[in-house]
Amino acid sequence: MNLRLSGCMTNPRYTPLAQSLPASVPFVGPETQERQRGAPFVARLGANENVFGPSPRAVEAMRGATGDIWMYGDPENHNLRHALAEYHSVSPENIVVGEGIDGLLGYLVRLLVGQGDTVVTSDGAYPTFNYHVAGFGGVIHTVPYRDDHEDPQALFTKAAEVEAKLVYLANPDNPMGSWHSGTDIVAVLDALPDGCLLVLDEAYVECAPDGTAAPVPADDPRLIRMRTFSKVYGMAGARVGYAIGASDLISAFNKVRNHFGMNKAAQAGALAALQDEVWLLQIRARISDARERINAIALENGLHPLPSATNFVAIDCGQDGVFAKAVLESLVAQGVFVRMPFAAPQNRCIRVSCGDASNLGAFAASLPKALADARALNV
Amino acid sequence: MNLRLSGCMTNPRYTPLAQSLPASVPFVGPETQERQRGAPFVARLGANENVFGPSPRAVEAMRGATGDIWMYGDPENHNLRHALAEYHSVSPENIVVGEGIDGLLGYLVRLLVGQGDTVVTSDGAYPTFNYHVAGFGGVIHTVPYRDDHEDPQALFTKAAEVEAKLVYLANPDNPMGSWHSGTDIVAVLDALPDGCLLVLDEAYVECAPDGTAAPVPADDPRLIRMRTFSKVYGMAGARVGYAIGASDLISAFNKVRNHFGMNKAAQAGALAALQDEVWLLQIRARISDARERINAIALENGLHPLPSATNFVAIDCGQDGVFAKAVLESLVAQGVFVRMPFAAPQNRCIRVSCGDASNLGAFAASLPKALADARALNV
Repeated sequence: MNLRLSGCMTNPRYTPLAQSLPASVPFVGPETQERQRGAPFVARLGANENVFGPSPRAVEAMRGATGDIWMYGDPENHNLRHALAEYHSVSPENIVVGEGIDGLLGYLVRLLVGQGDTVVTSDGAYPTFNYHVAGFGGVIHTVPYRDDHEDPQALFTKAAEVEAKLVYLANPDNPMGSWHSGTDIVAVLDALPDGCLLVLDEAYVECAPDGTAAPVPADDPRLIRMRTFSKVYGMAGARVGYAIGASDLISAFNKVRNHFGMNKAAQAGALAALQDEVWLLQIRARISDARERINAIALENGLHPLPSATNFVAIDCGQDGVFAKAVLESLVAQGVFVRMPFAAPQNRCIRVSCGDASNLGAFAASLPKALADARALNV
Repeated sequence: MNLRLSGCMTNPRYTPLAQSLPASVPFVGPETQERQRGAPFVARLGANENVFGPSPRAVEAMRGATGDIWMYGDPENHNLRHALAEYHSVSPENIVVGEGIDGLLGYLVRLLVGQGDTVVTSDGAYPTFNYHVAGFGGVIHTVPYRDDHEDPQALFTKAAEVEAKLVYLANPDNPMGSWHSGTDIVAVLDALPDGCLLVLDEAYVECAPDGTAAPVPADDPRLIRMRTFSKVYGMAGARVGYAIGASDLISAFNKVRNHFGMNKAAQAGALAALQDEVWLLQIRARISDARERINAIALENGLHPLPSATNFVAIDCGQDGVFAKAVLESLVAQGVFVRMPFAAPQNRCIRVSCGDASNLGAFAASLPKALADARALNV
């Protein structure tokens, strides 16, 4: 057939899957909201960024590497991978570095999930994982949170039931801040069905209580762990994440990843950040203090802050999702960027990231009016 | 079926496509070669990077943005997209920004190419495009270069013959440096079959003669143009590319892209680089001078440099691919990183990127021995 004669084709011809996908965004960025409201936010407490910033050594390394930015970054991420391997006492073959956990989740889903393949996650857990699954034609099954915790046993039981290829579990959890001990995760791993890989997202583990990281050998073929420099390391804008897993699985990322996708300065910054353990300890302390401050602000306003092992606190606003959304919208209108869980009953909460005295002062100043606004709507 | 009882599954269960893919790398990085040879390169002239570096304003913008690197970059790339739109006199809806052309090619292929779908490219053209096509199960058809030029008419004829969804054409071409005028590209566009999208990779167009960029309206649904800050703008390590195309197609990228994938400092750097037109003019002049110097070095050694509209020169070594490879290997052993075309007959050449006096001095000093080494092998 000569296509030039057919004359009836649309251009371009998307795949049926691409045709079916919405042009959706997992999260609306705060910059978009700032443009919409015509003013910058006073406090940026919605994206679980680390307002305290990265190690000064990381900043210096990134600034220094800017002079070399005419060069592509090392596609093997050799220095960073080797440093991470040493840090975790694993082999470099157990580590893949990528463009944030978001990028790595995309590659992982692409490797495993084809049209109609099933995955399991919690109802209201990280939407970017779901975005990737939908983007490769996968079918998402969910289980509810239990007492504001992700429920590994229920996730794994559902995974067996639907023959899932992949199950997603964040520990500590986002958006609730709740957590399980690493040994509890390991104990329940035996319930993970054969042929199902656990993605254990440990994005926040560096500010969780000791013992939260799952104590599993890197070569355990049942799971892959995701880590990031975006949260406690304070480098969200640099886009550096990594995964720890069995070497066969890690090597499979080389089949699909954007080999030259890493920013060269970001590679240098992550390496320096990893080596500054003193800074990490200071950040952990500041995060802990900020959580206490958020807890106090919540309690002062008659609200219930949930225990958190992360750099944010979910605050139970005491009513339903409509009420919490009204609180959130008033906060946003007052210039305080926060987010909230997507699914009931967790969406009775707002989610407030750790900030400094200034950010949290703005939050404290805005919350009473936000609650009054929401109550006025709710009469 | 209870998977726990089946007991025979491998973990993880890759898709059949992922299972079939090699863990291949489109290019071996120079850092890998440096580790293998146990010494850094004296001259880095193999990756068509811009050794003259980015605009000082871009460097300053990236360094400044490092202080804000704790924040995720704007997922809409709003400021950069709007500046690019103004620069090209198109609408922001005609522009998508991504993690280099490599990243954007990956998204584009994913949108269009499913298992068994056909694409057309030139034999020996950009291998990362082929990597993405294979990675999504596409079938690659090639046509030969004609007189060291990509051959649009042959590409489009082949596209009609195999009902290709996508055809790739770089103008100027990599690895040969050859080019067509933009009006010649437009003239042949009528031969592009219905239902086939042209990816026009204009990565090097900023250092090509005026009139090389294809003068097509952004909304022309027959093609999408790729541009980058990695080459003439000197920011390869930052990972910033963009595409110009019809708004429907551009919007489709939002279905699959890593929305928070852009490095925040890179966004700021690209914006500043775009605004420094004086620097761009200076770089064009330096590239032109460096091409002349490479030409002279080739001629001094009895070799034939090909005309180039890029920041590199393909040098015809006068014999076959085996000979050129021997020349290349001796250069690399002497600390001069260069690359060469993959396919015959273009692989009679080595490809040398523009460098400064020091880099090209090292190349000039090494080439006679490289030729002698290759001739000794070839006796």
